[in-house]
Amino acid sequence: MERLLILAEGRSGDPHYGKTGRGVLAYGTRPVVAIVDSTRAGETEPGGDGTGVPIIATVEDALRFEPTTALVGVATQGGRFPSAWRELLQSAIANGLHVENGLHEFLADDAELATLAARHRVELRDLRRPPPGLDVPTGANLELPVQIVLTVGSECAIGKMTVSLELDRGARERGLASLFVPTGQTGIAIAGWGIAVDAVVSDFLAGAGERLVVEGHERGGELLFVEGQGSLIHPAYSGVTLGLVHGTAPHAFVLCHLAGQTEIEGYPGQPIPSLRELVELHERISLPARRARVAAIALNTRLLDENEAHAAIRAAEAETGLPADDPVRFGPARILDAVLAALR
Amino acid sequence: MERLLILAEGRSGDPHYGKTGRGVLAYGTRPVVAIVDSTRAGETEPGGDGTGVPIIATVEDALRFEPTTALVGVATQGGRFPSAWRELLQSAIANGLHVENGLHEFLADDAELATLAARHRVELRDLRRPPPGLDVPTGANLELPVQIVLTVGSECAIGKMTVSLELDRGARERGLASLFVPTGQTGIAIAGWGIAVDAVVSDFLAGAGERLVVEGHERGGELLFVEGQGSLIHPAYSGVTLGLVHGTAPHAFVLCHLAGQTEIEGYPGQPIPSLRELVELHERISLPARRARVAAIALNTRLLDENEAHAAIRAAEAETGLPADDPVRFGPARILDAVLAALR
Repeated sequence: MERLLILAEGRSGDPHYGKTGRGVLAYGTRPVVAIVDSTRAGETEPGGDGTGVPIIATVEDALRFEPTTALVGVATQGGRFPSAWRELLQSAIANGLHVENGLHEFLADDAELATLAARHRVELRDLRRPPPGLDVPTGANLELPVQIVLTVGSECAIGKMTVSLELDRGARERGLASLFVPTGQTGIAIAGWGIAVDAVVSDFLAGAGERLVVEGHERGGELLFVEGQGSLIHPAYSGVTLGLVHGTAPHAFVLCHLAGQTEIEGYPGQPIPSLRELVELHERISLPARRARVAAIALNTRLLDENEAHAAIRAAEAETGLPADDPVRFGPARILDAVLAALR
Repeated sequence: MERLLILAEGRSGDPHYGKTGRGVLAYGTRPVVAIVDSTRAGETEPGGDGTGVPIIATVEDALRFEPTTALVGVATQGGRFPSAWRELLQSAIANGLHVENGLHEFLADDAELATLAARHRVELRDLRRPPPGLDVPTGANLELPVQIVLTVGSECAIGKMTVSLELDRGARERGLASLFVPTGQTGIAIAGWGIAVDAVVSDFLAGAGERLVVEGHERGGELLFVEGQGSLIHPAYSGVTLGLVHGTAPHAFVLCHLAGQTEIEGYPGQPIPSLRELVELHERISLPARRARVAAIALNTRLLDENEAHAAIRAAEAETGLPADDPVRFGPARILDAVLAALR
């Protein structure tokens, strides 16, 4: 069994940039033995077996926890590598660790790192590297004997992957043949398979989505919770979202929203439309050959106290006429009930 | 000045697959001296200086027309290379011709062809290869002192590029500082610059769109006619379309439609919505920070006789309340008037 060391130098406390690391801590099947971040050395991060995961200053210091694999635990906008990270990666490789990387820059294509990895007999795994042989969809997505649920949202990085993971976990606990379908680097690091659709050549986006649901079926899933990406209204990532919507051909959506957010982060002047408008927009843009309805609203209420959270959930229900809940904070049961009802 | 030989073996008569060749014949600035297609050898293709372009059986036979550059004149779905083409490419290279290729498979990455090209001192130009350094949009698309018009449509390969070219030509004839902005391999072969957005990593789709309008401005354009791609309702290519819509941030759309078409080609059961619905869908999905209206409907009436064409145009106007015309068949003046009125 692999044992993970998460590399999160300077970023482990940052809610956005530590996304990959925290996702693997919360949902991954491989144990996380330590986190490298010299700016927080000595602290611990919740997770693991409940005792917390130690934060360590350097890769060398972390070797006593016997990691086998270093995971790049940050996600940067656009997916580029901060140059200061180079020494950290070299240190991991030189100490005999495999390296998993989810950024758009591929480690295996770096001649110096590849040579170092060959010398130390470790693997450089680029989680975002597209598989060979991608093409346009064939229509197989509409033929599978599965039910497909895609998370969509008002913004990036508000918890679409987490909602899919929680719903999948809840469905499996009810004895359903449910499967989480990973579409991004963190999901891949968690589940051990998948395609990072945002790294695929644009012409093959929908084809990659189709291949993912086909593979989900081949892996035994009868109910597929597909991790959503981006947002139809995001100025940078909307194309990825729509390609995934059409390629995975969902039967139902779960619409995710960060309660209280009114504008796309990093793009001033780009307002987030009302939940009611978002519901209608997604339903209208779903494939004419398989119309999908929004089954429920998954609200991320992390900015609110508990009373405010319940009020926000009630307001979302009143606005949309759909069941709403925060499936991370209050459990996935209500959203899952709504999804299963919509699929009947 | 380069002289083009179009390679269109077995495909020069096919309305879809000869798209690149015919686009360059009709709108390119470099003369086309011959077309290679052994299945139609001896025929001529309209174009060139009005005398027609000869269709020749082999590259060797075509050398008497003194071409400098062979252009791969076919576009396949998904952009892969038919393997039988290999000999044709080798023949062109061995006879000292540069080769321009718009498919997703890159010639320069093929070790055998690259070696052959080096030996014969010719260039292998892969028109779809993305430029280095792409990233997400910065917001520069909203700051440029230009007016941006994007063609969108109900389907692929129904004339969005041609409509953009005709509108640009019409605007330049009126003395406007208009520029055609190429977003696909044929547009690039015609205009000599651009980015094939469907070959860009999905995360950078909108960023590529932004870079194109920035470059259009740098090239002196004050009115940019951006070549559209795919369709918001196309099961394979919708992601490319939406990324381009958000990245180029148009002030106005021209909606293109093949009169009479009711279903997406190759995707049975995927109906084309009404023009009225398409107008509303595009306007709703335009950037909240720059709402775009559909200024006019460009109908492709090639399947209709002249009376039927006029009737279809009147029907489109009645349905949408917008000016409609076939700008290729009847000239771009009416659509251009409508665009300029919408930009005022």
